[in-house]
Amino acid sequence: MTTTTPPQTTDRQTDSFAYRPIEPLDAESLAQLDGWWRAANYLSVGQIYLLDNPLLRRPLTREDIKPRLLGHWGTTPGLNFIYAHLNRVIRERSVSTIFITGPGHGGPGMVANAYLDGTYTELHPRIDRDEEGLRQLFRQFSFPGGIPSHAAPETPGSIHEGGELGYALSHAYGAAFDNPDLLVAAVIGDGEAETGPLATSWHSNKFLDPLSDGVVLPILHLNGYKIANPTVLARIPEEELLQLMRGYGHTPHLVSGGFDGEDPAEVHRRLAETLDTVLNQIAEIKAAAAAGTLDGRPAWPMIILRTPKGWTCPKEIDGHPAEDNWRSHQVPLASARDTPEHLAVLEDWLRSYRPDELFDKSGAPRAVATALAPDGDLRMSANPVANGGILKRDLVLPDFRGFAVDVPAPGATVDEATRVLGQWLAEVVRENPRNFRIFGPDETASNRLGAVLEVTDKQWNAEYLPTDEHLARRGRVVEMLSEHQCQGWLEGYLLTGRHGIFNTYEAFVHIVDSMLNQHAKWLKVSKAIPWRRPIASLNYLLSSHVWRQDHNGLSHQDPGFIDHVVNKKAEVVRVYLPFDTNTLLSAYDHCLRSVDYVNVVVAGKQPTFNWLTMDQAIAHMTRGLGIFDWAGTEVEGTEPDVVLACAGDVPTLEVLAAASILREHIPDLKVRVVNVADLMRLVSEGEHPHGLTDREYDSIFTKDRPVIFAYHGYPWLIHRLTYRRTGHPHLHVRGYKEEGTTTTPFDMVMLNDMDRYHLVIDVLDRVPGLGERYAGFRQRMQDARLEARAYTREHGEDIPAVADWTWTAESELDAREVNVGVGQVNTGTAATGGDNEA
Amino acid sequence: MTTTTPPQTTDRQTDSFAYRPIEPLDAESLAQLDGWWRAANYLSVGQIYLLDNPLLRRPLTREDIKPRLLGHWGTTPGLNFIYAHLNRVIRERSVSTIFITGPGHGGPGMVANAYLDGTYTELHPRIDRDEEGLRQLFRQFSFPGGIPSHAAPETPGSIHEGGELGYALSHAYGAAFDNPDLLVAAVIGDGEAETGPLATSWHSNKFLDPLSDGVVLPILHLNGYKIANPTVLARIPEEELLQLMRGYGHTPHLVSGGFDGEDPAEVHRRLAETLDTVLNQIAEIKAAAAAGTLDGRPAWPMIILRTPKGWTCPKEIDGHPAEDNWRSHQVPLASARDTPEHLAVLEDWLRSYRPDELFDKSGAPRAVATALAPDGDLRMSANPVANGGILKRDLVLPDFRGFAVDVPAPGATVDEATRVLGQWLAEVVRENPRNFRIFGPDETASNRLGAVLEVTDKQWNAEYLPTDEHLARRGRVVEMLSEHQCQGWLEGYLLTGRHGIFNTYEAFVHIVDSMLNQHAKWLKVSKAIPWRRPIASLNYLLSSHVWRQDHNGLSHQDPGFIDHVVNKKAEVVRVYLPFDTNTLLSAYDHCLRSVDYVNVVVAGKQPTFNWLTMDQAIAHMTRGLGIFDWAGTEVEGTEPDVVLACAGDVPTLEVLAAASILREHIPDLKVRVVNVADLMRLVSEGEHPHGLTDREYDSIFTKDRPVIFAYHGYPWLIHRLTYRRTGHPHLHVRGYKEEGTTTTPFDMVMLNDMDRYHLVIDVLDRVPGLGERYAGFRQRMQDARLEARAYTREHGEDIPAVADWTWTAESELDAREVNVGVGQVNTGTAATGGDNEA
Repeated sequence: MTTTTPPQTTDRQTDSFAYRPIEPLDAESLAQLDGWWRAANYLSVGQIYLLDNPLLRRPLTREDIKPRLLGHWGTTPGLNFIYAHLNRVIRERSVSTIFITGPGHGGPGMVANAYLDGTYTELHPRIDRDEEGLRQLFRQFSFPGGIPSHAAPETPGSIHEGGELGYALSHAYGAAFDNPDLLVAAVIGDGEAETGPLATSWHSNKFLDPLSDGVVLPILHLNGYKIANPTVLARIPEEELLQLMRGYGHTPHLVSGGFDGEDPAEVHRRLAETLDTVLNQIAEIKAAAAAGTLDGRPAWPMIILRTPKGWTCPKEIDGHPAEDNWRSHQVPLASARDTPEHLAVLEDWLRSYRPDELFDKSGAPRAVATALAPDGDLRMSANPVANGGILKRDLVLPDFRGFAVDVPAPGATVDEATRVLGQWLAEVVRENPRNFRIFGPDETASNRLGAVLEVTDKQWNAEYLPTDEHLARRGRVVEMLSEHQCQGWLEGYLLTGRHGIFNTYEAFVHIVDSMLNQHAKWLKVSKAIPWRRPIASLNYLLSSHVWRQDHNGLSHQDPGFIDHVVNKKAEVVRVYLPFDTNTLLSAYDHCLRSVDYVNVVVAGKQPTFNWLTMDQAIAHMTRGLGIFDWAGTEVEGTEPDVVLACAGDVPTLEVLAAASILREHIPDLKVRVVNVADLMRLVSEGEHPHGLTDREYDSIFTKDRPVIFAYHGYPWLIHRLTYRRTGHPHLHVRGYKEEGTTTTPFDMVMLNDMDRYHLVIDVLDRVPGLGERYAGFRQRMQDARLEARAYTREHGEDIPAVADWTWTAESELDAREVNVGVGQVNTGTAATGGDNEA
Repeated sequence: MTTTTPPQTTDRQTDSFAYRPIEPLDAESLAQLDGWWRAANYLSVGQIYLLDNPLLRRPLTREDIKPRLLGHWGTTPGLNFIYAHLNRVIRERSVSTIFITGPGHGGPGMVANAYLDGTYTELHPRIDRDEEGLRQLFRQFSFPGGIPSHAAPETPGSIHEGGELGYALSHAYGAAFDNPDLLVAAVIGDGEAETGPLATSWHSNKFLDPLSDGVVLPILHLNGYKIANPTVLARIPEEELLQLMRGYGHTPHLVSGGFDGEDPAEVHRRLAETLDTVLNQIAEIKAAAAAGTLDGRPAWPMIILRTPKGWTCPKEIDGHPAEDNWRSHQVPLASARDTPEHLAVLEDWLRSYRPDELFDKSGAPRAVATALAPDGDLRMSANPVANGGILKRDLVLPDFRGFAVDVPAPGATVDEATRVLGQWLAEVVRENPRNFRIFGPDETASNRLGAVLEVTDKQWNAEYLPTDEHLARRGRVVEMLSEHQCQGWLEGYLLTGRHGIFNTYEAFVHIVDSMLNQHAKWLKVSKAIPWRRPIASLNYLLSSHVWRQDHNGLSHQDPGFIDHVVNKKAEVVRVYLPFDTNTLLSAYDHCLRSVDYVNVVVAGKQPTFNWLTMDQAIAHMTRGLGIFDWAGTEVEGTEPDVVLACAGDVPTLEVLAAASILREHIPDLKVRVVNVADLMRLVSEGEHPHGLTDREYDSIFTKDRPVIFAYHGYPWLIHRLTYRRTGHPHLHVRGYKEEGTTTTPFDMVMLNDMDRYHLVIDVLDRVPGLGERYAGFRQRMQDARLEARAYTREHGEDIPAVADWTWTAESELDAREVNVGVGQVNTGTAATGGDNEA
């Protein structure tokens, strides 16, 4: 679909964002805001400090205080303030809203709000709405066997792990895509705002479609301090900050207050008026979008809220400022248990919220504390969008078998695996127009998934030029040159019940290592929480790998992402190395059907021999590994002399080429060829759900025969996965090492001793007696390597013996008369626009 | 040093940035700019396409074209344009300038410029200034055995690897720190500008001191397109872009031109005038800083240069736009070798630069092409700042032995290792006031290095408040909540010849995994380039690790950074796990003396027993591992029954506790206790320079006795490092696994089966016959674990048997009367402000 002008999108009306005349905050609303806020603050402080005496029905004693104080007060009152105000507008406007807690370390606040609106008790009946419930609520926080101090899967309403900072806005936009009636309120702390990922995620607004997507309301919360420093954005002139926000494409609204003892009621009034104004602006934008009268990208409103760090805590402690200072970042009265004066200060602090007004005799919160709670699913803690598994619908998946490539014999045809995958994905897009997206850092075309652009566009809401292609206000493909953004958007999309793919270069995916950590942790913990429903897996498609530096001029990094992923909990990670078109189709169909995993699929995009028919591919991918009996020279009923194993597309090619050389030159050698496409099959049964039993493993790899294993990544990973296996001492792995400079594919495999000739030499050296018996042949293999290298140095491309090699031809070292070859691939098209690499 | 108002810094005058009246560009200068630019463009196109016929002395033929075309044309003419203009002002003003090539994939341009100014031939005499030299220059580019397609260590004048994008500005500011007379011209591509790290790095200007630091001139180069998409910043309204830059704190200057066939001479005139204006603004700021009249943070100028992508290439190819389109991103005429029409277009394109005017008969560039080259070291390709090893001066290191803590007996005293390290670092700062910096993401105080703030401040050039502490316009500590920025700044600082530390939480250091890749690659490649001089090592101090979730409420990630680092080339990585104060001091002294490494030091910051005297610590760290004979129960002349090994502070504590239990309860069991502090010692000799010989390894770990190894990180790393060792089948590793929720230290080690009781059980189970003989004792160990866990669930802190355990006391399971204990540490101070965690 080529569009030179953006289409008018007018097929959807929404009335969730209706305009309302703004009235000054009335006394009742003010009382409700104040009541909720005081209650949430009280519950937050209680969680941080109290083991017992939750309602202060008796004077506070040392024994009431937790021995290990842990939690973050500083950001919490601001979060509670915002939460209360959002409740008010949700009640007035019935707008479905979720709350993204950028400062996720404000965990006590989020728990407190979920408790006040009733969700917490519904999901955790043990935490009842009485004094004992409060005691449990307080005690469990940051306590052995309890809940983390940060927002986490355990926190109702959260889709956001409160560990690493930086992804609040990416997650928010991911949640908003294709949720046209949803408001995503995203609080960004001024600490988080300093991170790189957050700093670029403001530009997400250049991708959102005002009509078919929801609304993100960023609330930049300036409380001025991090752990031990002021924050940058709180210390630039206000006009500069406003310009920054306008430069990011927003209409900023500044609310500041609570300083120097200002009555919070004044701040309530100001924020309420601002929020009403902002929601009316949103309503206007939404209405214009619905009417088709929106002129370009709207300058969506955002709020800058400046309040004191640790607001409402003691102004000073031991002569140092506490409120409005970095000292209130975590636990302002750290020695409350051991210092009687501090204990007294803590008691005063707690009583300043007037708990007797907030909770009745039984300990249940009174109406003054809870009146702002919206109804049912409108409660932000109960919104099903924030427990996306509830809303998830399976994808309608077209039969991938229909996209099979013809494989009359192994290696008889050549395809670009990802290009064919793209054709299937195009159908997936067509069948699932509202809940499936493909994210990528400007590499979707380069990764040869271009077929999807025949059925959809790349979503884009910045300026257009007449020469633009495949850009539109709506599209299933979303591309920005930020791996952080792509992964963050996808995470937000998945966590709210949809499906998607992140396609990126393997070579740079380490950029999101820490994001993978956070998401894998979320999945791991969620699996143990009954009310968290399974979400679609996070699917990586990693192309442009290190074995093809010929296409990127040695700029690429390493294949170590797999190592990083394998460190995660076995239940949540899967690694697939399909090696041709049909295996890639089969693998990806599986991935898109799965839930709660991180699926890493590494697949080259260059033309590659097709080795398996679709039936064979399905069988192979179902087993996850298997013997290529068509490639080996085994004799039935006997053990092979040697096993040639491979995992990955380039290793598979080289192993098959080595096998063909051996078949020709040492025909009586019993060679078994094994391919591993599901890496987790190598692990012992007890350590990974996909692990082979030892018996199965031995039946494939033998107990005592040499195994020469050509692997896509760092060789030691294979050792690590197999070190408990009986045959491990006989395993020799060739793989990627950090070596020098080259630019032809065969150069690269030679550099890593993983080329066909070296694999043959490995076999000669590992099978007892063979090296001596075939000393001359061994020398010819050495010579072949030298000749191949000299050729590339002279000609800049692979030697024909390699470039033109095919499986079906009789393998000769100097075979020159074959027609189909991929050893050196695609010179003609490698550098055309759409296939370019960065 | 506490400062509530920033000090006036007036002790340095600089005249490199002098004001000059602006005159219109004269004809001669214009001709020089045009000549340089045409020549650089010609040389760039030649590198991408030509194997031969470098001066087009005969018609271009198929054989003159490389068979594999690789390189990036799109960004190159813009880089060449900027380079030429900077040459002009460098010549006029004699300002020492380096060039940061954000779009590092514009490698052909950077090589071309270095060739024109003569540096290339000086460093690579093979690439002479004649026709054969040109032939070699063209041929080597992206050719097997040649140079990469991107800016790289091989590129003179570069400090910037052109692989992953995002760090141009961080590197630029790192280079500018403490180089008051230096101008760092940093070109930021509009692709790179979309990355997170780049988006936040604009805020670096809130840290730079206008007087004692150099000047960064950001040049945002908008050529409009990435691989296959427009760029965000090129597609927002100009006023919005200007606001963004003002919001980032800059004074933007926009130069746009070259579109729709505009004569480049016009663009030359506009950029020249702008550059003169900008340099005069810089001169004014510098003068005001020198005079002490600068009012707050200056709004440093920056340039937005908007020119067509692929400027000067064919306007259209095959009916598609090429110039000013994403199609010119990489190789616009990809099939020039095989398509005669394309070959003709290429020849026309090359001839459009009029090579006969630019090169003389011999092939040497004529004056018209080179007249703009500055003299000697003022050439940007030759500036020694960009080959920092030349300028590097060894640090003056105070004797760390003077900071030794007293250790009358193993475990008799307790210290926070990083706090003592901070005292030594304070002296390092004092002795090296101009070439040593400590970078951190707001964690320097939290990591207990606060002593450095007694001798220096945290550099800060945003607004101040009276309550601020330790902030000043100048300071050796630089903190921003962005690991990307911290590492990027440090890299820039090291690459320009200085020294430093990056202190951060181990738990989040995965954020910079890919940056580590880039820097390790730089070091690896630089080692093989004779003219690249060694630079100071990149030193990580990783604290706040996963074993102390008690201090961060389970927000922390994993210990896998070590695994990632160990994947890098052995020559450039070192991993140290000091386990107490004296070993940390010894390790860090070594790191600060080393060059060309990435040193990863993991060190807990919580109070820990001191195990070794300084003499013992030095001996141990020099060996890198060793037997704690004071802790074992070996009998001289016999092999031990079991080896208890440890690496890391918490594992060392647990292993020693296990050893004490065994000593008491099974006194006749011959236990050897081994500590590994330099992880690379485990590797085989041939694989890492630090690797033990097999003989040494066997003498420590034995060939056949069970080894129970308690390791700080993921257990399989130890297997991977040792899998070639004879005794490997007898090695049993306990380490970090991805498990559930807890918050006391002992809970955490129990969860991972690495606690003392479980280690004892491991010994009972692994030493033949022992488990049966001590079945009752084994059960008591099991019970002790259950009791310990139940205690934490009830009390929220570790059981006294663990919390109060000491090495010197007789170890009893229920010992309750000891005074010094760190099993549960520091409850009182854990949560005070300065030690807080995020």
